[in-house]
Amino acid sequence: MSFYTAGVNPMASCDPAAAGSLSEEFAVPAHVEEVRSVMEAFAVQHGAAGRRVVLITSGDTKVPLESRTVRFLDNFSSGRRGASLAEYFLSQGYAVIFLHRQRSLYPYTRLYTGVNLLDCLTLDTVQEGTGLVTVDQTKLPNITEVLKRYQAVKSAGLLLPVEFSTLSEYLHLLKAAAQALSSIGSKAMFYLAAAVSDFYIPASEMPEHKIQSSNGPLQISMKMVPKILKPLVKDWAPTAFVISFKLETDPSILLERARCALDTYKHQAVVANVLDTRHGYVVVVTEDSQTELVLTDEEAQREVEIEDKIVRNLSHAHTQFINQKV
Amino acid sequence: MSFYTAGVNPMASCDPAAAGSLSEEFAVPAHVEEVRSVMEAFAVQHGAAGRRVVLITSGDTKVPLESRTVRFLDNFSSGRRGASLAEYFLSQGYAVIFLHRQRSLYPYTRLYTGVNLLDCLTLDTVQEGTGLVTVDQTKLPNITEVLKRYQAVKSAGLLLPVEFSTLSEYLHLLKAAAQALSSIGSKAMFYLAAAVSDFYIPASEMPEHKIQSSNGPLQISMKMVPKILKPLVKDWAPTAFVISFKLETDPSILLERARCALDTYKHQAVVANVLDTRHGYVVVVTEDSQTELVLTDEEAQREVEIEDKIVRNLSHAHTQFINQKV
Repeated sequence: MSFYTAGVNPMASCDPAAAGSLSEEFAVPAHVEEVRSVMEAFAVQHGAAGRRVVLITSGDTKVPLESRTVRFLDNFSSGRRGASLAEYFLSQGYAVIFLHRQRSLYPYTRLYTGVNLLDCLTLDTVQEGTGLVTVDQTKLPNITEVLKRYQAVKSAGLLLPVEFSTLSEYLHLLKAAAQALSSIGSKAMFYLAAAVSDFYIPASEMPEHKIQSSNGPLQISMKMVPKILKPLVKDWAPTAFVISFKLETDPSILLERARCALDTYKHQAVVANVLDTRHGYVVVVTEDSQTELVLTDEEAQREVEIEDKIVRNLSHAHTQFINQKV
Repeated sequence: MSFYTAGVNPMASCDPAAAGSLSEEFAVPAHVEEVRSVMEAFAVQHGAAGRRVVLITSGDTKVPLESRTVRFLDNFSSGRRGASLAEYFLSQGYAVIFLHRQRSLYPYTRLYTGVNLLDCLTLDTVQEGTGLVTVDQTKLPNITEVLKRYQAVKSAGLLLPVEFSTLSEYLHLLKAAAQALSSIGSKAMFYLAAAVSDFYIPASEMPEHKIQSSNGPLQISMKMVPKILKPLVKDWAPTAFVISFKLETDPSILLERARCALDTYKHQAVVANVLDTRHGYVVVVTEDSQTELVLTDEEAQREVEIEDKIVRNLSHAHTQFINQKV
């Protein structure tokens, strides 16, 4: 029994697989065209109003091991960072397309994760028959403030949620988003914060039915997922401001890998972080800069979030990027 | 690239791996003793009050591929059935230990899955400063009724939730539960509804850090998880009423596999179902019976749930089981 990677990669170490035709190996979701139109209308509307639009990807991707899926490979990601980033971009005046894994954390609602809804409600039985249900605000801290912000964003139509679940859905919807945002040029930002699987099993090589455990131990052989960042930057959204991230558990290789990604894909920024310290420390790496963002203890106590700093840094860089293009 | 199972299994086809010493290959969770005491006190208290106690396992198990986990294997399971079963067992007068995957569906709250909390709340701004937040009951159907039932169960202390996330946690907590319920003998029921992984990578063979995709395609070799049903029935809870389930995508092998499991583990019942039809059709298989439970269209319209029928069937069988033991 062992766990290993095999095969020698003939390409550069940051570019493990080129993205060929997506639809050959990844089934096209039925609703992709419909979602593309909605995103396009959103971009046009907000672009016309002088707003920038950021597309944030968030959460993990599901990689099925069987075509009628019982088992799947997944990545650690609650979607907390993506949901949090969305809120801060909204505060900075952006319109946000939130391309997220189904049931991953959601902007504003994320603040009440892990709370059981029914534990927060009080049934008013004083007036027989009316049954007014109210919120116990000690259970949902700052709920009036959060609700106000949520309702303001919602009524202004500034947040467009789009869901994915599998890796295939993610890839096709991201491509559709890039096409949808092309009309606003450099005013579009792509912040790829989703934890996308590096490996998958092509549909053609998947067993139809659930793998029977009685047949003995399991050997899985997975292909590398094409790096969608390459066609995104080069072909689909060549004028947009594009941000990717690096999350490693081993700090010693982090910055080297971040810089390697920038060199390979020629996009604008990499947000680099280490699993254990990601809520208090990140490095924003660009072609000619490397900026450490640190949350002080005092800030952490005031519930400042690192995403606030990330967004301020990147929206500033986005302004410079737009100005250079003009 | 292919996906296959390898190796010849020297044992019977329903008994792919015997459960050796759990703690050798699965790390013991730090809180297992504490949880055991809580479960034991719960069983003793309700047993003394003449109540039966059912332990329901629910949701999926996470199988880490790296020790500082970024990637993991998982199973399809929302935990809907387990959460629903818990409600119907509570209606039948059982006390319930709900051993469930963290963030899987929860009794009562499950009825509002997919609803965004903030979309259901109304901010009362009439009285400046008070900020009363009320529930929009059109968004949470039957909320007053559900809330009443939830609060009654909670205040009577009839539902004990215990969370797990990884396969290791699940296995150790289930063993602890079996020991905790031993004092109430045949009044204990175990309903194993969780979708437990059949495969895992032993801690000793796991890489510490995140697997680098740049090293090429991925080969994973996984061991079979020991069938905990065997020691559960034979050693840990020999006097309890034990139920397992079979979920297959291929209907043609379902009943054969259900009966094979009963023959192998000598427990009391298997709830057999097919992935596509599981909400409307199950077969309860026991040593000397095979009962089809079907939801009619008319019942489905009235929002009757198949779990209501499963629970009525099994609590009746449990009564007979207890009477035979006396």
